Amino acid sequence: MSVDRRVAALRLAMEKINIQAFIIPSSDPHQSEYVTDHWKSREWISGFTGSAGTAIVSHNHAGLWTDSRYFLQGETELANSEYVLHKVYDQFAPSHTDWLCNNLQAGETVGVDGLNISVNQFKALQLELKAKDIHLKDVGDLFESIWSDRPTLPKDKAFIHDEAYQGDSMSNRIKQVQKGMKEKEHFLFSALDDIAWLLHLRGRDVESNPVAIAYVLMNDHSVCLYIDPDKLDEATLAIYQKNKVTLKAYKDILQDLKTIPSDESVIIDKSIVSQHFYSAIKANVQHRGSIIRQLKAIKTDKEIAHFRNCMIKDGVALTKAFMWLEDKVDTEEVSEYDFAMKLASCRSEQGQYFGESFNAIIGYAGNGAIIHYRPMPDTSLTIKPAKTLLCDSGGQYYDGTTDITRTIVLEESIDPSFIEAYTAVLQGMIDLEQAIIPEGTYGVQMDMLARQHLWAKGLNYLHGTGHGVGYFLNVHEPPQGFTAGPSPRSNTVMKAGMITSNEPGYYKEGHFGIRIENLILTKEHTKEGFLCHESITLFPIDMRPVNIEVLSDKQINWINEYHQEVYKKISPHLNEEEKTWLHNKCLAIAK
Amino acid sequence: MSVDRRVAALRLAMEKINIQAFIIPSSDPHQSEYVTDHWKSREWISGFTGSAGTAIVSHNHAGLWTDSRYFLQGETELANSEYVLHKVYDQFAPSHTDWLCNNLQAGETVGVDGLNISVNQFKALQLELKAKDIHLKDVGDLFESIWSDRPTLPKDKAFIHDEAYQGDSMSNRIKQVQKGMKEKEHFLFSALDDIAWLLHLRGRDVESNPVAIAYVLMNDHSVCLYIDPDKLDEATLAIYQKNKVTLKAYKDILQDLKTIPSDESVIIDKSIVSQHFYSAIKANVQHRGSIIRQLKAIKTDKEIAHFRNCMIKDGVALTKAFMWLEDKVDTEEVSEYDFAMKLASCRSEQGQYFGESFNAIIGYAGNGAIIHYRPMPDTSLTIKPAKTLLCDSGGQYYDGTTDITRTIVLEESIDPSFIEAYTAVLQGMIDLEQAIIPEGTYGVQMDMLARQHLWAKGLNYLHGTGHGVGYFLNVHEPPQGFTAGPSPRSNTVMKAGMITSNEPGYYKEGHFGIRIENLILTKEHTKEGFLCHESITLFPIDMRPVNIEVLSDKQINWINEYHQEVYKKISPHLNEEEKTWLHNKCLAIAK
Repeated sequence: MSVDRRVAALRLAMEKINIQAFIIPSSDPHQSEYVTDHWKSREWISGFTGSAGTAIVSHNHAGLWTDSRYFLQGETELANSEYVLHKVYDQFAPSHTDWLCNNLQAGETVGVDGLNISVNQFKALQLELKAKDIHLKDVGDLFESIWSDRPTLPKDKAFIHDEAYQGDSMSNRIKQVQKGMKEKEHFLFSALDDIAWLLHLRGRDVESNPVAIAYVLMNDHSVCLYIDPDKLDEATLAIYQKNKVTLKAYKDILQDLKTIPSDESVIIDKSIVSQHFYSAIKANVQHRGSIIRQLKAIKTDKEIAHFRNCMIKDGVALTKAFMWLEDKVDTEEVSEYDFAMKLASCRSEQGQYFGESFNAIIGYAGNGAIIHYRPMPDTSLTIKPAKTLLCDSGGQYYDGTTDITRTIVLEESIDPSFIEAYTAVLQGMIDLEQAIIPEGTYGVQMDMLARQHLWAKGLNYLHGTGHGVGYFLNVHEPPQGFTAGPSPRSNTVMKAGMITSNEPGYYKEGHFGIRIENLILTKEHTKEGFLCHESITLFPIDMRPVNIEVLSDKQINWINEYHQEVYKKISPHLNEEEKTWLHNKCLAIAK
Repeated sequence: MSVDRRVAALRLAMEKINIQAFIIPSSDPHQSEYVTDHWKSREWISGFTGSAGTAIVSHNHAGLWTDSRYFLQGETELANSEYVLHKVYDQFAPSHTDWLCNNLQAGETVGVDGLNISVNQFKALQLELKAKDIHLKDVGDLFESIWSDRPTLPKDKAFIHDEAYQGDSMSNRIKQVQKGMKEKEHFLFSALDDIAWLLHLRGRDVESNPVAIAYVLMNDHSVCLYIDPDKLDEATLAIYQKNKVTLKAYKDILQDLKTIPSDESVIIDKSIVSQHFYSAIKANVQHRGSIIRQLKAIKTDKEIAHFRNCMIKDGVALTKAFMWLEDKVDTEEVSEYDFAMKLASCRSEQGQYFGESFNAIIGYAGNGAIIHYRPMPDTSLTIKPAKTLLCDSGGQYYDGTTDITRTIVLEESIDPSFIEAYTAVLQGMIDLEQAIIPEGTYGVQMDMLARQHLWAKGLNYLHGTGHGVGYFLNVHEPPQGFTAGPSPRSNTVMKAGMITSNEPGYYKEGHFGIRIENLILTKEHTKEGFLCHESITLFPIDMRPVNIEVLSDKQINWINEYHQEVYKKISPHLNEEEKTWLHNKCLAIAK
């Protein structure tokens, strides 16, 4: 069925329920960043496969709103349909809302599936539309009746995270969350990684995110997990029984929410829980940021120890992959896609490997400037012994989640503008990590440390500097992060035990992309009341394109100490040839 | 009448209207930071004279909530009354609200004068109290009946800011504000500096702030100024007549607000406009941040040119005052208060002088660590040729407002911990000013540049790094500023034309205070899309306590260029002896 025929079918469904526009966000009932195929309705209705974007279908318009990362892809993928690409230049400005306000008539109704939109998003949209006397209505999932070959919800088995790699016991986690709960209070958790953390639940339901589709409803003395019973094997059932976790069918959650008596309270995070669930609750609703999100961000000592070991394995895998690339690039045809596959293959040879933590971004030359570039087998460029290569990749291991970017030069003569920007990016990455901060410091305060050397040259990058990272969980894990300016992510206080990416970059369209990324652990400083950071990622940074003259002594010391540490930790796991290769990459620099 | 008798009288008034607690904030109907004597009801009812604090009187408790700047003063001033000092450790946590929630019974009522509280503050308080089933009620000004010797509203003449020093014509200002207004829309302005800016109105109604008490109500074709008619002379009346500004009595505003028809709109800034006014409006109320606050922050080219000239005069005055101090300190008894007077006197000898822009903070030795210290004639310390002196002072001139802090050492042998901190403060102050930032950067992103050298040593300061400064207006002028962490001030985008203070510090209780402050002008950088800053304050920074070895070349260059500029601009206005003195203070440094 062509996209235009799908749109026609949707319009018929819309007419039946008398709505004049229908919004299709790229979300799911758990407000996930990445969604399982069953919920890829925005992709199905528009043909646009990018991970971020919103479609709106009205009786005479089909539009797709997406940001600059996807302009090119959007234009290509929407070309043969009636869709109009609406370019979003400010990711925080809801420009599709403006479109609705300007193109619908007073008294008309906009529909949305209330499961795919958070309470906060629904309310904000409702307020904007109301000013124009336009109604917003939760009309449910219109695709059920028109999407005939829709994938079912995944049937893959979920599993319990192996005890050897757990950061804490399930009973302790449950206790931590229940602590301070009052009688007649209920917590509703709908974010898949929150549930994964609480109940050591893992799965393969979402690409690269090791989560299983489920809900949790709990009070001060019981925990109920709502999940497709076919997903759990006997061993898993036994563990949940032992921990007194009640099991119910995934779909039962809605009815159970409805029947919580009106003199009881349900505590929800309105930025996560869906409007549909919210409006179904008859009990008193209290808003509180997800307590699991806060607890999960502070990694336990066990998790940190596992992370450190995992980083050694990741460094070994990277050593083998980059060595392979250097060897092959001179003599064979190696494409960006080939190298992405090689990275995954080298990681898969390491112990406790589970899969990629995201689709590797391997951007050769100008492709490096496409921030969310994903090399595909049929279109990816050949990596030649010239220009530069940006490699952003990561692995899911049972004992950690990794995310690392390195940018390497493939020829002797390097463009001076590349050297200038690469050096500034590296200086920023070091300065952010090296900052000593008092307790109570927010991510937004630190962000510019990573940017200031670029800014001094009139350069910048238009993405955040860092995001929280899960422990054998989602590679993008709220709440904390570094962004330029206030955002929920960067308005989070940094705390000891957090693991966050530190990834400044610079992109010259059509020429090159630069990004250098380590994961950093926030920890207590020897000076009381202060915190500092440590790079836990272990792999050398290409020093060939660095203008050493402009580095401070402190930056040079950091580089030399870091490379010494990388060599010390990684080399014991390498053969002689690999050791020599790594040794050369870790040589000390000096002015 | 003793404070306890005042409290007893208030309790009688409270009983009559059946409220169980009454809140007395340190505000006025214009939500001013500093208020005229008539509105110093919090001071009258508690005896506490500090500028920030909230009193609450209930039938069995009288409490005063204030922050760490005023703990000592609070304890002293409340000692002989029934008041309990409640120490506020987090200025953003409304701890007096907690007290009300915990000490009142469900069904009881808290009263407040709705004129002295903004809509936002009232709503926030109401929400907290409602959770405990406690009511909040606007009960008006209870002091009218019990404060017998209450000062009247000031009768001082207001005046029009001399045309020679105006930044723009009155008609242009009115046009700028009216631009984009629709029919049937009204702007209500209640902040005194907003009104001053719009109508070139100045006065002496609030100490150090050259404003006159008034309101403005305007629509797309008319402007009405509500002010005591006795405050305006014939010349002023003629100017307002020429500019078609209608005049009405100050008290008439309330009735006029009430009679705006319900199909019209009143646009207010809910963080400024009082709850009492808000609830009186029957028309549709729209919330929008004060447009004047935004416009006023961007100084015009004329204003900037005047500011530059004003800074030369301020530098000349400071040269004379500091030279006098250095001379006298060895041989005579000079107190902190004497030096504050000397500074004001030297400023008053300059052209276009109007008065102090705030009470000078002259803190000798340990007094320097009391952040809002104000030397009083009878208690101020003698400045000896030993230890250190912190001097924070400023002037109001018809052609600008100044605010400068210098910390000087008075002896040859300097405490190494002073040198370490002083050097770090200076480095931070330079780094913040030297930052090149892209358009769209928020103050909160820049703040840590001023702190990072201190943080690296485990040191910090617990006040903001900077605030906006008015043009012959309030020395604390919203919206912009630099604070550690998100706040309304630092969540403001920095724009070309803003003038902001840059004043990091460090305080060692009982020993010394360090603060170095310049006003900086935000301006366009030669690199398109980027902004930079320039110190417009002109006075040498004491180099004796600087550890030059740790400064970067960039910092040393900044110091030398700044001192060269100071000497170049100031010296033509000095006699030979003064020139020599200044020359010695401006000598170049080198590693």
